[in-house]
Amino acid sequence: MNFSELKYNDAGLIPCIVQDANTGEVLMMAWMSAESIGLTLERGETVFWSRSRQELWHKGATSGNTQKLVDLRYDCDADTLLALVHPAGPACHTGERTCFYRSLVKG
Amino acid sequence: MNFSELKYNDAGLIPCIVQDANTGEVLMMAWMSAESIGLTLERGETVFWSRSRQELWHKGATSGNTQKLVDLRYDCDADTLLALVHPAGPACHTGERTCFYRSLVKG
Repeated sequence: MNFSELKYNDAGLIPCIVQDANTGEVLMMAWMSAESIGLTLERGETVFWSRSRQELWHKGATSGNTQKLVDLRYDCDADTLLALVHPAGPACHTGERTCFYRSLVKG
Repeated sequence: MNFSELKYNDAGLIPCIVQDANTGEVLMMAWMSAESIGLTLERGETVFWSRSRQELWHKGATSGNTQKLVDLRYDCDADTLLALVHPAGPACHTGERTCFYRSLVKG
């Protein structure tokens, strides 16, 4: 499949789960446009679409915490992506390794 | 945090990544409403909101492939969930263990 054939939402975006290729830890979820997917594949580093800033977002461009792409998978419905990466540093802007550091169950 | 304080989209939904608690494999992504989150926590099994059928979807109710909840985490923005589960069978309706069985990179 070519990435242009994926199913994008009304805003032209598709969710991308980011997972550490070595540890299996789920690091974050962000959104990609067709353009950002193309750039991700071209550069070999994750590039998202920032919904808050409405612009392309090369993860780590300012923080240095880039994510080197190992694989980019898509699901059975072709409406969700899974990026396997080697992260250069914490994924979360809080400094946590993963954005999912809190639990609804365990408090 | 109470789950009612999470950030839902305009349709009242929040994406939920499902990960095998033992293997670390990312199995699927689906959507939850506040009601489905409450039911997930109450029953200890994943309950989603089916956008195609517009109804609550107790995963495995018909296939038997339920997902026992181990933990339910939320991200730094409180707009994405991560469910850690023990799956009773394949997550994907195709029979694959994970919905992410295809790659844009590796063909």
